[in-house]
Amino acid sequence: MSISSFNPPRRTLMGPGPSDISPQVLQALSKPTIGHLDPLFVNMMDEVKSLLQYAFQTKNEITMAVSAPGSAGMETCFVNLVEPGEKVIVCINGVFGARMKENVERVGGIAITVDGEWGRAVSPSQLEDTLKQHSDAKFVAFVHAETSTGALSDAQTLCAIAKQYGCITIVDAVTSLGGVELRVDDWQIDAIYSGSQKCLSCVPGLSPVSFSPSAVDKIKSRTTKVQSWFLDQTLVMDYWANNSGGKRSYHHTAPVNSLYALHESLLHLYREGLETAWARHADQHQALAQGLADLGIEFIVPEAERLPQLNAVYIPEGVDDVAVRSYLLNEFNLEIGAGLGAFAGKAWRIGLMGYSAKSENVLLCIAALKQALNKR
Amino acid sequence: MSISSFNPPRRTLMGPGPSDISPQVLQALSKPTIGHLDPLFVNMMDEVKSLLQYAFQTKNEITMAVSAPGSAGMETCFVNLVEPGEKVIVCINGVFGARMKENVERVGGIAITVDGEWGRAVSPSQLEDTLKQHSDAKFVAFVHAETSTGALSDAQTLCAIAKQYGCITIVDAVTSLGGVELRVDDWQIDAIYSGSQKCLSCVPGLSPVSFSPSAVDKIKSRTTKVQSWFLDQTLVMDYWANNSGGKRSYHHTAPVNSLYALHESLLHLYREGLETAWARHADQHQALAQGLADLGIEFIVPEAERLPQLNAVYIPEGVDDVAVRSYLLNEFNLEIGAGLGAFAGKAWRIGLMGYSAKSENVLLCIAALKQALNKR
Repeated sequence: MSISSFNPPRRTLMGPGPSDISPQVLQALSKPTIGHLDPLFVNMMDEVKSLLQYAFQTKNEITMAVSAPGSAGMETCFVNLVEPGEKVIVCINGVFGARMKENVERVGGIAITVDGEWGRAVSPSQLEDTLKQHSDAKFVAFVHAETSTGALSDAQTLCAIAKQYGCITIVDAVTSLGGVELRVDDWQIDAIYSGSQKCLSCVPGLSPVSFSPSAVDKIKSRTTKVQSWFLDQTLVMDYWANNSGGKRSYHHTAPVNSLYALHESLLHLYREGLETAWARHADQHQALAQGLADLGIEFIVPEAERLPQLNAVYIPEGVDDVAVRSYLLNEFNLEIGAGLGAFAGKAWRIGLMGYSAKSENVLLCIAALKQALNKR
Repeated sequence: MSISSFNPPRRTLMGPGPSDISPQVLQALSKPTIGHLDPLFVNMMDEVKSLLQYAFQTKNEITMAVSAPGSAGMETCFVNLVEPGEKVIVCINGVFGARMKENVERVGGIAITVDGEWGRAVSPSQLEDTLKQHSDAKFVAFVHAETSTGALSDAQTLCAIAKQYGCITIVDAVTSLGGVELRVDDWQIDAIYSGSQKCLSCVPGLSPVSFSPSAVDKIKSRTTKVQSWFLDQTLVMDYWANNSGGKRSYHHTAPVNSLYALHESLLHLYREGLETAWARHADQHQALAQGLADLGIEFIVPEAERLPQLNAVYIPEGVDDVAVRSYLLNEFNLEIGAGLGAFAGKAWRIGLMGYSAKSENVLLCIAALKQALNKR
């Protein structure tokens, strides 16, 4: 074998994640590894929890990072909350809503879908109609920010409706956390999961989650065992729950260094302030949208339902998708995202997430796209 | 909140993992993040696969790193291979064998246990007796290196017996990979999982796995869906399998930076050579064992069944477990491990894993223990 050390170039990451990572977060990542039961590490985990409570705007005691990517965070919510035979209303307006349905079925739940248009927000009235027809539903699940289409749904309204029908709410905030307004407690979200590599601008591989007291009660009242040992929150809670900095029961070895990085990236978000971060994403999105309009590139999502941090646009007629993305990557070390699911080959997804949401990235992206399109 | 950047001290890690990590691996970890579908990253993943094939001594096409810790690697094996109602012989001689049983039951399998003494190797004759009584068993599962007790089992013999009875073999190599002889193909191991943070001396959070053609056939012939979406190898294989460096289908966002670190740590193992690494672990173990004997400290495991990389010893009579470990940590930044399961409070586990298996660590550990014991 002829293999040498890997030396990646510095890319500008404007796809659907991972996003650009600040030098300080990368530096935190490479600090000396210590034991996962070391008192200093246990104390740092408590700080991560406090910082996540701030980011999620929640007082939930069970707020932590799952030791795996966002899709494991999604599975953590469904596998712990939903028991076989229970009915879950799943709103689908893109790839990740469809994945929620898959998760419900794999735990033996019954998924009732609210099928929305791809590229649009979830319709509150459609959800309410479905709830009227299924008064025995125990859960409502939806994606706050659909990474596959760039659509933002009104989580506050959807949860309020779900609560009128006595449902527990499960929300995908993988792409929304840190990028747009999100208030877990005020909005009555019971279970939520996110990813480290989107608007938090941490390395990929961790999934922040939070469970409300109602969700915890539901988990504790299960009559069946959680089918996943690794994701079983009744075990993991014992590992994360202790706040005293004292004894913590062993479940699995935490990804120590990735948690250093998450700690640092959450600290940056805390210091910037959530409202400021949301405004920054909105501002950079406006600048990008103007630049794209000047190039004649059209958005998939209507303006009022657009995610500032994930701009899904139609590939202009006659333009070679792969050729343009390769050109941007090879000439300018600039990554933008391909379309996913129904939009594969038809759309680009331009991310402005976390540390990537800055004016120099917007300028580079517009200038590079202009050059790429002129070349055809 | 008053939280500042986390600055861990440099510890010497001689517990049951994580182990010491070389400066080059930490440096690799903090290299610039690139996209998980970037052609350069895809090519690096192919190299990780080749390096893992070397480490496991296998030609298995399906050899990869699960994007989560070793316990998720364990679950990956059981959740993909075992279907509800299928019988699995599980050999238990410590905490991790018991966890295997838990995994079998959570997928709806029937676990038949071979209950061995904690601190001893799994008994081949006891396995054979059990197989004679359960001719309908489809799997034999055991732990090669029991991290909770320090016992090494004879994987080659156990697999040979399992094969005589037509069983698929599932082996836990979390602590063995890179530290003691292990030959997946020669020994007829069908499914194996390990951890990044033991003798590979990479950061915690990844689980190398490998599946033989027989195991892959079993997975492909399933009549039920894998109950975990995140760990479903029929989906993950599509993500890792492509060798051409070309198109790779999206499943989840790979933990990019952790994989940089795994690449670098596997490269170190390849350059050192497996046999040399095994001999180094054996040599350092001899030195440590001599030093412990001089202090009057006794091993739990009989000499012939001892793991060189994990030395489980009885805490001397009258010595305060926690006080000694805290003293080592606070005075010398030296971490040794507590006892686990049946040995909690009764044993210490002293790791000599990967980059930690070096003479300066042995000297420090013996000298520090001597000082700690003299203080009582």
